[in-house]
Amino acid sequence: MTCTAYQQLEAIFARYSHLENSVRILSWDRRTLMPARSGKTRTKITATLHGLATETICNPQVGELLAVAEDREQACLTPWQAANLREMRRKWNHLSSVPAALQTAIAELAGPTESAWEMARRDNDFGLFSGHLRQYLALQIEASRIRGEIAGLDPYDTLLDEHEPGLRKAKIDPLFDDLAGFLPSLANAIAEKQSHEPPALALAGPFPLDKQAALSRALAGMVGFDFERGRLDVSAHPYTSIVPGDIRITTRFDTDDVRGGIMSTIHESGHANYETGLPEEWHFQPVGLARGGALHESQALIFEMQASRSAPFIRHLSRLLRTTFGRDGPAWTDANILRNYRRVRPGHNRVDADEVTYPLHIILRYRIERRLMDGSLDVDDLPEAWNEESRALLGVAPPRVAEGCLQDPHWVIGYMGYFPVYTLGALIAAQLFEKAATEEPDLHEALAGGDFVPLLRSLRRHVHALASFPATSDAIVEQATGEPVSTRAFKTHLIRRYLEETVTG
Amino acid sequence: MTCTAYQQLEAIFARYSHLENSVRILSWDRRTLMPARSGKTRTKITATLHGLATETICNPQVGELLAVAEDREQACLTPWQAANLREMRRKWNHLSSVPAALQTAIAELAGPTESAWEMARRDNDFGLFSGHLRQYLALQIEASRIRGEIAGLDPYDTLLDEHEPGLRKAKIDPLFDDLAGFLPSLANAIAEKQSHEPPALALAGPFPLDKQAALSRALAGMVGFDFERGRLDVSAHPYTSIVPGDIRITTRFDTDDVRGGIMSTIHESGHANYETGLPEEWHFQPVGLARGGALHESQALIFEMQASRSAPFIRHLSRLLRTTFGRDGPAWTDANILRNYRRVRPGHNRVDADEVTYPLHIILRYRIERRLMDGSLDVDDLPEAWNEESRALLGVAPPRVAEGCLQDPHWVIGYMGYFPVYTLGALIAAQLFEKAATEEPDLHEALAGGDFVPLLRSLRRHVHALASFPATSDAIVEQATGEPVSTRAFKTHLIRRYLEETVTG
Repeated sequence: MTCTAYQQLEAIFARYSHLENSVRILSWDRRTLMPARSGKTRTKITATLHGLATETICNPQVGELLAVAEDREQACLTPWQAANLREMRRKWNHLSSVPAALQTAIAELAGPTESAWEMARRDNDFGLFSGHLRQYLALQIEASRIRGEIAGLDPYDTLLDEHEPGLRKAKIDPLFDDLAGFLPSLANAIAEKQSHEPPALALAGPFPLDKQAALSRALAGMVGFDFERGRLDVSAHPYTSIVPGDIRITTRFDTDDVRGGIMSTIHESGHANYETGLPEEWHFQPVGLARGGALHESQALIFEMQASRSAPFIRHLSRLLRTTFGRDGPAWTDANILRNYRRVRPGHNRVDADEVTYPLHIILRYRIERRLMDGSLDVDDLPEAWNEESRALLGVAPPRVAEGCLQDPHWVIGYMGYFPVYTLGALIAAQLFEKAATEEPDLHEALAGGDFVPLLRSLRRHVHALASFPATSDAIVEQATGEPVSTRAFKTHLIRRYLEETVTG
Repeated sequence: MTCTAYQQLEAIFARYSHLENSVRILSWDRRTLMPARSGKTRTKITATLHGLATETICNPQVGELLAVAEDREQACLTPWQAANLREMRRKWNHLSSVPAALQTAIAELAGPTESAWEMARRDNDFGLFSGHLRQYLALQIEASRIRGEIAGLDPYDTLLDEHEPGLRKAKIDPLFDDLAGFLPSLANAIAEKQSHEPPALALAGPFPLDKQAALSRALAGMVGFDFERGRLDVSAHPYTSIVPGDIRITTRFDTDDVRGGIMSTIHESGHANYETGLPEEWHFQPVGLARGGALHESQALIFEMQASRSAPFIRHLSRLLRTTFGRDGPAWTDANILRNYRRVRPGHNRVDADEVTYPLHIILRYRIERRLMDGSLDVDDLPEAWNEESRALLGVAPPRVAEGCLQDPHWVIGYMGYFPVYTLGALIAAQLFEKAATEEPDLHEALAGGDFVPLLRSLRRHVHALASFPATSDAIVEQATGEPVSTRAFKTHLIRRYLEETVTG
């Protein structure tokens, strides 16, 4: 028995992968170094490549091959091939179900909607945006409804499932309700504790950009980044470009504040580590991709939050900071630098939020976008609903709509239903770090010397090597830690770090 | 009457253009900044994109559309559209005529042949290469024979026509015979003259790379390079990546020798100027491309050789060099710097050759490759034939085969039949510069101030704006200067510059 249909599918999906990867490199180029006025040609090129990628998958021949392989070739497939076929089906269902006319309508509305959002934010005028959002949302709901029909999912669950396979509202609700009950009082307790400690003295700049860049390169290498198969550059918004064998992370530097550039580099290096740990033989097939958004975020947060804000590593980092920038004195003690990285205070801005209150920003957005998707919240009522949730969860409301419901780009760049993965990632990071510390007894000691190898070894084994062979991130987490995704480890971690650890030195 | 077939062809060729341009950006990335070990993925990506580009053109549907447009739609086409249709046909004939199996065989042999050449050159052992070259050549001859059948061209004329439409051996022979008779005695006369002049004192380094880079940027801008729609970077072999609206030139620097990096930047900026001057509305159609290899080379040489080695500009450049590198003294006078850029001496190395003897290197290669293509020279006899021609034309023979017939990569990277365009480009540059000096009376005075605008204005008008609307470069040159491509202006230029001008200061 031969698997000819499956073999044809592998060739088709490899071509799709190469096209997607070409777009990724061109996007990286656009964000890092493309000349200021070369966007016009670039847009034509990437539109062509996107179109070809979609055509490669979205055609009846692929549907027929999938049916043949599923019906008649299961017996001759290896387990990884069978998993690959499952992932091909998922991708095909996702890409092929929405009528081309609806896809085109959404694509055409995307630019104007984003522009309207930018203007509304600039002018602090929600009215400039609401009409566009209403129209754009309606089309997205319709597309999600159609995509969800095959799997019997409602539109919001469809979006969740696309960002993180298997994710459902029903899984999120108990986790988020638990955190919404726990975190505000924890934040208060931490604020109370920190009010009795010395205040964090500012780490005063300036910090020369070339020194920050050299330090970032050193830190990325320390975390495990492979500069022979990747690059580190600067872009307005840090991100990771995930072409197998050619992973490119970006960061950004602030002359007056050294903290952000460092942690952004480590965060993206965590994403990069996941990608470089995926099995090479499956690099260009669906089963070879990272499992999902939440698990990916966990790989960034385990390095940025769990490992790099740990006391042992902060001591190491403090030495590096003092040496690199030639600083000394009370602001540059290990303890003060630790305090700088551990200050907890609720605010209205998500990207500036600390580890403890960050999930509350996510829960706010989750509640709002669910209601927008199911129609129980009208777009016109969005600013007020946002402020109410903000007061309820964070105790503060944004001073202006531009800093409130207009602060994030996600809803206008196709990331509706994505916010939950940030916090699920934080939960998973806590679980996997706890596991790594158990099975790698020297993990903390290694971090004290700037050595991430024990941590990376644990992640390579339990997460990276599996790629998308398991059907869900939940399965990967449960296999690795013995429990499904839960709030337990995260809560334990926060209590230990912010209430029990004593900062000295 | 509607031109529906033609309109469909425009859409198909635009897609082809976008795919080709995507490959160009990825190739630029590979040469300038791709991580050392990311080549494996990149090769897969570009092979996929190349394949899709070829599929876009090489299919019977395109052949049918061409036939319909040519037979029934000529009347409704504008002159530019008609020229575009002519160029589409040329491209289609070129790409579609060779059987896929033969194309694959050539593609598969390319890598091993290039590797064998590299090894043979490294070990100075022609025997390591001769078998590969014989086999590779046989396939290339067969492919050229098939491609030439439609137009009734022999294999070598077919290759010439692909690099420079309309070019034939019969056009080259009288030009090259003339130069072969003229240049050796001119070189002797110049050597005699220069032997009575002060020797060129070396421009001693070191020259810090950052200062060389800043000077190169300034010079590129001076020549007309638009940094808002292009970049200047460093790569092992300087070249110009020609994506419309996103032109990227590369150069290379030597800490010990400042001369090469400067002229390489100006050379590539000349190529870039041609590309940025092409009409924007035809950017993604065949008629919108630069006309041919010889004309393209002329645009580089007119800036590098005609303008930048002129006495007025060398005076300006000398001031820049003294200021940039803080130098003074007898080596840094205008006259000595000019002598450095004008030293004439026959050698066995093409890329190091001066303006006067360079064409002799080209004539050598032209004679050799013609004989290889028509079978009158056996591959085994290549080294000896090379040395004989070298002695006859240049008066010197290479000391080793590695520095003789193995010095250039052209024959193993698909550039058989390309060498003649270098010297035709030099001839055209002389003709166009003479024309520019006539119609822009302040051209020399402008160059003395580092102002290339008058020269560029003349080229924009006579060359760049025409793109591939005329069928041949010959037509463009004749329209611009009133005479076909000839040796007259080049010979006049060399005599004036090297025998008549007096170097003082």
